[in-house]
Amino acid sequence: MVRLVPRDTKFYDMFADMASNIVEAAQLLKSILQDFENVEVRTQQLKELEHKGDDMTHGVLVKLHQTFITPFDREDIHQLASAMDDVLDFMHAAGERLVLYKITYAPAAAAELADVILRQARQLEKAVTALDKHDQVIEICVEINRLENEADRIARRALGELFENEKDPINLIKQKELLEVLETATDKAEDAANVLEAVVLKSA
Amino acid sequence: MVRLVPRDTKFYDMFADMASNIVEAAQLLKSILQDFENVEVRTQQLKELEHKGDDMTHGVLVKLHQTFITPFDREDIHQLASAMDDVLDFMHAAGERLVLYKITYAPAAAAELADVILRQARQLEKAVTALDKHDQVIEICVEINRLENEADRIARRALGELFENEKDPINLIKQKELLEVLETATDKAEDAANVLEAVVLKSA
Amino acid sequence: MVRLVPRDTKFYDMFADMASNIVEAAQLLKSILQDFENVEVRTQQLKELEHKGDDMTHGVLVKLHQTFITPFDREDIHQLASAMDDVLDFMHAAGERLVLYKITYAPAAAAELADVILRQARQLEKAVTALDKHDQVIEICVEINRLENEADRIARRALGELFENEKDPINLIKQKELLEVLETATDKAEDAANVLEAVVLKSA
Repeated sequence: MVRLVPRDTKFYDMFADMASNIVEAAQLLKSILQDFENVEVRTQQLKELEHKGDDMTHGVLVKLHQTFITPFDREDIHQLASAMDDVLDFMHAAGERLVLYKITYAPAAAAELADVILRQARQLEKAVTALDKHDQVIEICVEINRLENEADRIARRALGELFENEKDPINLIKQKELLEVLETATDKAEDAANVLEAVVLKSA
Repeated sequence: MVRLVPRDTKFYDMFADMASNIVEAAQLLKSILQDFENVEVRTQQLKELEHKGDDMTHGVLVKLHQTFITPFDREDIHQLASAMDDVLDFMHAAGERLVLYKITYAPAAAAELADVILRQARQLEKAVTALDKHDQVIEICVEINRLENEADRIARRALGELFENEKDPINLIKQKELLEVLETATDKAEDAANVLEAVVLKSA
Repeated sequence: MVRLVPRDTKFYDMFADMASNIVEAAQLLKSILQDFENVEVRTQQLKELEHKGDDMTHGVLVKLHQTFITPFDREDIHQLASAMDDVLDFMHAAGERLVLYKITYAPAAAAELADVILRQARQLEKAVTALDKHDQVIEICVEINRLENEADRIARRALGELFENEKDPINLIKQKELLEVLETATDKAEDAANVLEAVVLKSA
């Protein structure tokens, strides 16, 4: 049978590109938070990845508005692109705080949180290239949510220690915001996973 | 006439369960903020209600994705579940701040805000079981919005007094965040009311 | 040919009214942040504009829920109204911080940010009255996004200077929040522009 209106598979490629860009940014952010070397130069690289991600997101949305038949719900394409864009934004925001607030050290929890974001990003990368495999996507979504819970525990413990030990209020403000911004990136990855779960549940 | 595709009324029951779970959490939070006794144990109970709420929200969304004909707009079901989930999340966040920041007292405004959340939750509970009664739902939504304005005034006054009197910046940060998180819970209840208003307006 | 179901053009007028209300509020906020005179009285005027905006937003949503055929996607009408409402909310929040925290001075960046909001608001006003002119709306959206980037740079530089120079943590908290709230208003104007871009792309 001839498929008269072929569904546009290009969206999948675009999401795969977005995911691998997020993986690259998460690797970079993690390594910055591990050694705090050349922070300004490497945060600039992070900013470039974030700009690249913005262009990718914009590309998905422009394509979405101009495409009549989409491979999955329009609203889900929009929300997935937004959530993946947010992950990158909050990673970039974390890097920016380092420069802006001249942060030269952070508790180990900061690099641990970046590592959680990296692991979530790798799961996202797997999921967007396997959207036809229902069970695999559901498993990935469960894992991304589990990682978000792990991030939550890491951030909570680190914030508790911060309020216990940091007596300089301005340092406390800086470190608190760094930890919160990192933790928010993991929330956004969970949002992306929730959209992916919706996509496979609807097609079941 | 035979109704060939019966609309699924199970959603109403699920929302009623979510609402009564929110009421229970709000009662608990209010009583914690009134006496500050056994904070850790009771915050743990609050966390359990929040987890229960998470499961309920997830249940609504899974059901939504697998249901063809819904009793009201899919998007509204999604948004209502999300907003109700957010109310609980911010209540839980308030409880968590108490433990994390070792907060052992708070201005009376904190318990007053929890009381506003409780009153909003009771209104939500009434509304989700009366979605076929247009005028009653509209009245409830007006009342929930009025309560949000009341919360706004309470929080604003308390923040003004905090900045007037609290000279320890770290204490100020803790108390400010507690008040803001509580006030945000009332915003989320208003979001839920706005969805309910949309539902009855569309069916008018 | 007779158009049997005329599309409702009233929405355009409502958005034009919302935009000019935002312009008025931005002018007021900018002038407050320039001279810090009669802050309480003029913040009260800002609050009145915000209430007027709330009523306008509510009017759009009620009309939306009761209208069968809309001039553009229902979801976009909803999102545009929400984003425009948010611009006003964050301007109002900035004014409120002045009164609440008794802020009597601010870095020049605060008035500069209000000026960016004003310029964005004027662009929004142009766009909502030109939704049939594809190229013009796209140009306006590019300009609103450019202004958001400008606001980002202004806020970042001001925050860097604040953390460099302000040694009083409570003052730092106040000024930081003022700058952040202003910058968020420019994000919300960008959100509104993104909806407008979607509207014209879809109709292309």
